[in-house]
Amino acid sequence: MTLPPEFDLIARHFRPLAGEGALGLSDDAAVFLPPAGRLLVVAADAMVAGVHFLPEDPAETVGRKLLRVNLSDLAAMGAAPFGYLMTVSAPRDTPDAWFAGFAAGLALDQAEFGVALLGGDTTGTPGPMTLSLTVLGSVAPGCAVLRSGAEAGDGVWVSGTIGDGALGLDALQGRVADADGWLAGRYRVPRPRVALGLGLHGVASAAMDVSDGLVQDLGHLCRAAGVGPGLGAVIEAERVPLSAAAREAVGAAVGAAGLERCLTGGDDYELLMAVPQAREAALGRVAAACGVAVTRVGRFEDARPGDGEAVRVTLGGAAMALARQGWSHF
Amino acid sequence: MTLPPEFDLIARHFRPLAGEGALGLSDDAAVFLPPAGRLLVVAADAMVAGVHFLPEDPAETVGRKLLRVNLSDLAAMGAAPFGYLMTVSAPRDTPDAWFAGFAAGLALDQAEFGVALLGGDTTGTPGPMTLSLTVLGSVAPGCAVLRSGAEAGDGVWVSGTIGDGALGLDALQGRVADADGWLAGRYRVPRPRVALGLGLHGVASAAMDVSDGLVQDLGHLCRAAGVGPGLGAVIEAERVPLSAAAREAVGAAVGAAGLERCLTGGDDYELLMAVPQAREAALGRVAAACGVAVTRVGRFEDARPGDGEAVRVTLGGAAMALARQGWSHF
Repeated sequence: MTLPPEFDLIARHFRPLAGEGALGLSDDAAVFLPPAGRLLVVAADAMVAGVHFLPEDPAETVGRKLLRVNLSDLAAMGAAPFGYLMTVSAPRDTPDAWFAGFAAGLALDQAEFGVALLGGDTTGTPGPMTLSLTVLGSVAPGCAVLRSGAEAGDGVWVSGTIGDGALGLDALQGRVADADGWLAGRYRVPRPRVALGLGLHGVASAAMDVSDGLVQDLGHLCRAAGVGPGLGAVIEAERVPLSAAAREAVGAAVGAAGLERCLTGGDDYELLMAVPQAREAALGRVAAACGVAVTRVGRFEDARPGDGEAVRVTLGGAAMALARQGWSHF
Repeated sequence: MTLPPEFDLIARHFRPLAGEGALGLSDDAAVFLPPAGRLLVVAADAMVAGVHFLPEDPAETVGRKLLRVNLSDLAAMGAAPFGYLMTVSAPRDTPDAWFAGFAAGLALDQAEFGVALLGGDTTGTPGPMTLSLTVLGSVAPGCAVLRSGAEAGDGVWVSGTIGDGALGLDALQGRVADADGWLAGRYRVPRPRVALGLGLHGVASAAMDVSDGLVQDLGHLCRAAGVGPGLGAVIEAERVPLSAAAREAVGAAVGAAGLERCLTGGDDYELLMAVPQAREAALGRVAAACGVAVTRVGRFEDARPGDGEAVRVTLGGAAMALARQGWSHF
């Protein structure tokens, strides 16, 4: 019997990724015992060619980015990932080599993050490559780190460096220099801070991942706090950690707008954390154990009545006006 | 602060669908306690406008179909659904009314099937509307009904009627008559047999849902059995249950190809079951309790050496040649 082409694709490229409970991807659903005594943590993100990644991006990095942006959501909850489901809607002329590369990228990251494919669907589309992934993980009861919980006086902390992803897109599109490809690599293969996230319970009062721009996402943390007259925050732009490549790109090629690009450009997939002063040492110990740099970039404060924006940005003590707060993939 | 448009869409249309643990769809992930003492059952299916549904289909039925095709996968495992995550990649000119209708359809079916939205993502796309849904459910340990397990001698059983979905697509595209819209309704709003599925443990030796055509999907059940020289099956075409609307369409408008269209057209979302003769009475009792008709349409048999196809179809005792075995959405 000649089966439709998706069965062959699934058998060759995706079945080797299947984990326990996935039933070889050849049943109607996966069946497995959830981690005992723990809460489930689930998130889903889609990626569309030309919107979330470049059509010419290597298939391998597309697969890795798809998995990693979802792992970043679990990291922000302090959850440990264990599996994922994925749907792939592919243009009908997609070469077999694309699927091979895509699966190879997923295989690399499955090994790195200890997750396995549990199920999904492969379909055709007359439009651009459209990918959707649902990640499943777990957390001990009471240990999830939510977006709500930040308080005035808490420090605003970020992991890693900010702005590389947005500048990487700029570099791939020829707008900034990126001699060694560092920035492009950060755009294509973000680094979800799963290990750091696992250490945040009892340390951070709130956390989320930065996907749509630091300023806009910090606004989400402020609104999520939902206390009294409202929570605001100030970012001291000169404190925001930039990579060497980003500093070069911002200084040389982008000019004054470069710092704003870093603060609002999105695609960072770093953790944004609210940390009380009394817990800064604990955060330092957790971060050091994970080999991840963490930097305080500002502080939460009571919202200022009449202020239109929850988040103020200062540079050298003066207010920094921003043309926009963040990025939208809609 | 002006938020990007997806935040407003999510707040107005999707937040009212959010269940316990979804954290109002405003955190990075959902967090909840899985059903105690049970296995998790998860599946994911995508739908693309122009491939899995018609661009002019009402938004309400698009939402219901998206949820229902996934619920059908859980039904085939004998699992009880409890929630879902969803990603929506929408053309940027999608009117707000489309989202309102889409969410209204989901709300209807959430109430009917006892499920709630747990998370997801809304993005733009330069292509057609592309939807992906991951459904979560549970089953008691040892009670999942798998695709493997059919044996020679088991009856081939189906729920409901076969062919309505494919003929419904034909009707909507003007190829067959559908005076009262029954066929179109079956294409747009399939009926996942969740209740029937819950009763299949200890009754069916194997089950799956029919989504890509009865003949092709029955071939999957044969291959999944994976025993000795292989399993085959025969379908007696005259036994296949057709609705009154399908009989009319097949007889009057489609002619001799009509029956084949029903057997291979796909989009049925009925259950296909392998049932040992000794358990036929039990199946009858379960089906009656659910108010669902079940019909034996053939029997599993030892594979015939040299036969190219696992599944034979007969009509009046003579072999029925089929131009194709089933449908592909790739």
